[in-house]
Amino acid sequence: MTKQYISMENLRFLLYEVHTIQDLLTYKRFEHIGGIEEINGLIHSAKAIADKELFPFFRAMDENPVVYRDGKIRSHPQLKNVFKAVADAGWFSSISALEHGGMQLPFMLYSAAHLIFEAANSSAQGYVGVSTGALELIETFGSKELHEAYLPNMFAGKWQGTMALTEPQAGSSLSDITTSATPTDSGYYEIVGQKIFISGGEHEACENFVHLTLARIKGAPAGTKGISLFVVPKFIQHSGELLDNHVVCAGDFQKLGQRGYATAHLIFGERGVTKGFLVGEANKGLSYMFLMMNSARIAVGQTAAAVASAAYYASLFYANERPQGRHIADKDLSKEQILIINHADVRRMLLMQKSFVEGSLSLVNECLKYFDLEKVTTGEEKEKMYLLLEILTPIVKTYPSEAGIVSVSNALQVLGGYGFTMDFDLQQYYRDIRIMSIYEGTSGIQALDLLGRKVPMQNGKAFQLLLAEMRQTVVTATAYPELISYSELLASAIQLYETTVHHLLQFAKKGEVEKYLADASLFMELSGIVTMAWQWLKQAIVAQMALHSGDTEKQSQAFYESKIETMRFFFKYELPKNSAISHTLMNLEMVTIKKEQEVLM
Amino acid sequence: MTKQYISMENLRFLLYEVHTIQDLLTYKRFEHIGGIEEINGLIHSAKAIADKELFPFFRAMDENPVVYRDGKIRSHPQLKNVFKAVADAGWFSSISALEHGGMQLPFMLYSAAHLIFEAANSSAQGYVGVSTGALELIETFGSKELHEAYLPNMFAGKWQGTMALTEPQAGSSLSDITTSATPTDSGYYEIVGQKIFISGGEHEACENFVHLTLARIKGAPAGTKGISLFVVPKFIQHSGELLDNHVVCAGDFQKLGQRGYATAHLIFGERGVTKGFLVGEANKGLSYMFLMMNSARIAVGQTAAAVASAAYYASLFYANERPQGRHIADKDLSKEQILIINHADVRRMLLMQKSFVEGSLSLVNECLKYFDLEKVTTGEEKEKMYLLLEILTPIVKTYPSEAGIVSVSNALQVLGGYGFTMDFDLQQYYRDIRIMSIYEGTSGIQALDLLGRKVPMQNGKAFQLLLAEMRQTVVTATAYPELISYSELLASAIQLYETTVHHLLQFAKKGEVEKYLADASLFMELSGIVTMAWQWLKQAIVAQMALHSGDTEKQSQAFYESKIETMRFFFKYELPKNSAISHTLMNLEMVTIKKEQEVLM
Repeated sequence: MTKQYISMENLRFLLYEVHTIQDLLTYKRFEHIGGIEEINGLIHSAKAIADKELFPFFRAMDENPVVYRDGKIRSHPQLKNVFKAVADAGWFSSISALEHGGMQLPFMLYSAAHLIFEAANSSAQGYVGVSTGALELIETFGSKELHEAYLPNMFAGKWQGTMALTEPQAGSSLSDITTSATPTDSGYYEIVGQKIFISGGEHEACENFVHLTLARIKGAPAGTKGISLFVVPKFIQHSGELLDNHVVCAGDFQKLGQRGYATAHLIFGERGVTKGFLVGEANKGLSYMFLMMNSARIAVGQTAAAVASAAYYASLFYANERPQGRHIADKDLSKEQILIINHADVRRMLLMQKSFVEGSLSLVNECLKYFDLEKVTTGEEKEKMYLLLEILTPIVKTYPSEAGIVSVSNALQVLGGYGFTMDFDLQQYYRDIRIMSIYEGTSGIQALDLLGRKVPMQNGKAFQLLLAEMRQTVVTATAYPELISYSELLASAIQLYETTVHHLLQFAKKGEVEKYLADASLFMELSGIVTMAWQWLKQAIVAQMALHSGDTEKQSQAFYESKIETMRFFFKYELPKNSAISHTLMNLEMVTIKKEQEVLM
Repeated sequence: MTKQYISMENLRFLLYEVHTIQDLLTYKRFEHIGGIEEINGLIHSAKAIADKELFPFFRAMDENPVVYRDGKIRSHPQLKNVFKAVADAGWFSSISALEHGGMQLPFMLYSAAHLIFEAANSSAQGYVGVSTGALELIETFGSKELHEAYLPNMFAGKWQGTMALTEPQAGSSLSDITTSATPTDSGYYEIVGQKIFISGGEHEACENFVHLTLARIKGAPAGTKGISLFVVPKFIQHSGELLDNHVVCAGDFQKLGQRGYATAHLIFGERGVTKGFLVGEANKGLSYMFLMMNSARIAVGQTAAAVASAAYYASLFYANERPQGRHIADKDLSKEQILIINHADVRRMLLMQKSFVEGSLSLVNECLKYFDLEKVTTGEEKEKMYLLLEILTPIVKTYPSEAGIVSVSNALQVLGGYGFTMDFDLQQYYRDIRIMSIYEGTSGIQALDLLGRKVPMQNGKAFQLLLAEMRQTVVTATAYPELISYSELLASAIQLYETTVHHLLQFAKKGEVEKYLADASLFMELSGIVTMAWQWLKQAIVAQMALHSGDTEKQSQAFYESKIETMRFFFKYELPKNSAISHTLMNLEMVTIKKEQEVLM
């Protein structure tokens, strides 16, 4: 076997067989694309970029990390080639509208390309991803003037877009941001304040940086209702020249992982006037930002699955090469040692990874399809897509991130002591993936979003729609005798999930907010497991269908059988955890809510 | 609150109140020590060393790691001061016999001092721990000549002892080691071979290195029965001079964590004759090594708990200093932000850590007491201590290591984005602790040891003794009305544990070894949870007793209440996982055993 970081077979299986991206091409917005052949062409061009410009440099970008020196952030020289290759292939404009010079691809297709980039080199992909998000904000909410001033150079990969939200005193609490914007008569605002953790905030591969910045216009209401969105460039282009806008980069956070990805500390308006240009209407900044945030959350979930994918294949490669010990029932020492892939415990660690990675990617694509369909449908269908996406977004961000940490840890463990050394890649994947449960709202914040906002929204409608989707899969599975027992297991799990929600909602109805939300993280864990089981049954149905029909044109028989087997793994080893979590969620003893006497010591 | 890495209150609680180290002083072997006051004095002298020589340097030893340059391993200059301070306080000779110039302390007391060292700086402690282990081997099995040649300089911290087991082609599979020993007429053997992953194998703080090396004497039987133990020094002392023994250090493995701790690659007998001196009898090397290995396994478990302890206090400190957001039911933005320790989800992450750390440390001390009692008791009592220690050793190595990884990850998460930066210590703890589930036999190997050897040993006697100990705690707890419901929960958990074992043993009885052992890792997880619940109920009994009697001389009322509350946390959030794991263990569907068609792709 050869070294790989992503399975193109699995990606095609998810895109064409399980989540049928080709459905999207029937909508007017996407009909210019053509067919599966064109999609395949785009994906394989992304793979070629990843193979040539990203994967060979992922260790080097970690070993020669981004560093702040002499007032500037220094980045790996390869980054320039990455920007060039990605821009040349058109990926910076891939989701932008045709009328703006974009390729107007479905987000699902854009994401397939990014999945490959993320698995190959998550630090390098980060720059591309955040720039595309910033672009999307300007394109969607910005004026014609902003479009003209920023889109062309960002499409060309010459200018880097970023998201500037976090401030030192207000991490997860966006209502407490204090960066200020003072209106002037000249069409711009004067921006004063500090932003931290700005991914891609400065580096050597681009000549300008376009910070999509949250700030408060003087006199705006307190809290999130007084936040506006501004374009704050590092340099302002004027008659072909780039004029200094006094955005000072004060440092770069050195990190545990993703060390090739800059994390800037920016200061606005301290060494001179920093001009900011309002995007859309005043005080609506947070709602605009959430457009970007929702796709960013899916992207973080996908990146976690991508890193876990690369780690999985690294450990699978090792397990297929490394002899160690003998068959467990075999005591004959004169025999050669066997490859460790033959040991049940190693297989367990590999199957766990495969179930987490491929299950997560299936969920990601489920969400991506909702994302695209919400844009092209209308009326009730559009509302349904919107609600399903709302309730699944915190889950698709969190499950792959949390399961991904466990997955990569198991990949490292497959290598034993070697996994802990710098001689192998696993130590880097282990460090890189750790940020995913923090990016774009920590797992705790996602859990509050899920239980506190998404479950009760529209009187529980989003939640009911999700249950209905899952139950539809249960019904479909009963058509296959091989899947009946698993469909029954999923049906029971859905039932228990619903019961648990009803139990929790009692507290919400009584206004006992703290009791309702205290164990939101456990509810998230439960939601992740049930959702994953759903996605695995969904994949198994497609595989079983292919095996029944004997149609192995798209994939080999072994591929389909491996899907069934991995589904069985998930249902045996992971799904049963749901009952323990429900049990805890329905336990009325409150332990984590603070009492008078502090017990944490 | 001030920064701390270990709770001395908790250590005293475990030593004097729960596991009553003072009982040991009634035995002849330990009666020279005195009483609790003397024990306290020794522990506090260890704390003083840790505060002064270890903790202030734990970041520096990571940031300026051990490195191989010009044929030598370069280490941090502080290491010399560590060796000096530890030697001056007598810790290198602390468990050695009085007659050999040692302090003849209980292993439990030695370990209390080491716990403090490990929490302060696990890399630096490693050198001391492995040297003491090597010393113990020479002292126990070596000849008078070996004692005289090696003990004094090792006691003085001038010579470093190591364990040289692993070879490149035989990681966990010791039966496959090939380093050879050829007898000569001059009282030594010629050693030829390579050893990797030799912790403390070379550095700049000692003038000589004493490698306790496993090798095969020419013509010895195959497998583990043909392995002998040798002392292989780097230099041989002859008339006051140190003569080169041609032990070549070929490199140092650069690692994810514990970067201050050398991990040498050694080559024997390539650039000249390497002399080895047989320890004890030929072909008994592995059984000797297991003496060291068993205490080393307890030590690894303790180190994991120690690193998790340091991470816990770092995150607790942060949670008590960092304002962020408002009370979950409070939407008034004009109020100041509250400290994050008030958020239920942060409290959950902290209580989880506290339950893992303090529960693990209680189990460690349970084992340490068995270890010491086994040495000083006779007959049936000695046999009982031996069997309890045998069955608990793989658990006490594995639970703290695996739970410790989760614990430190939660500590990092409490800090959000800051936790991922090099500005805080958490990223180092996260890297350092990852090796614990690999050292001294991976978790998978420990699981095979537990289920494959320890559970069936002496017809299940060790397992039955463990159940009896746990059930004794259940009975004791019923005397306290506040604990009755928890004692019932533990009783059910023990029952289910026993049922699960009986289910698995069916396969063993039928000779279906692979089926029996395929899920050994899950059985380990189950054993860890039940054992932890036992230790938490045990601690709660002591705390409840003190609260009833109003005796708060030893500890404050708040301390005892925090113990009860943490026990409640463990029983609500962790113990219920047992039923899910048992469910999986009793599921007859085999997924991880290799079938004809490979499904891993």
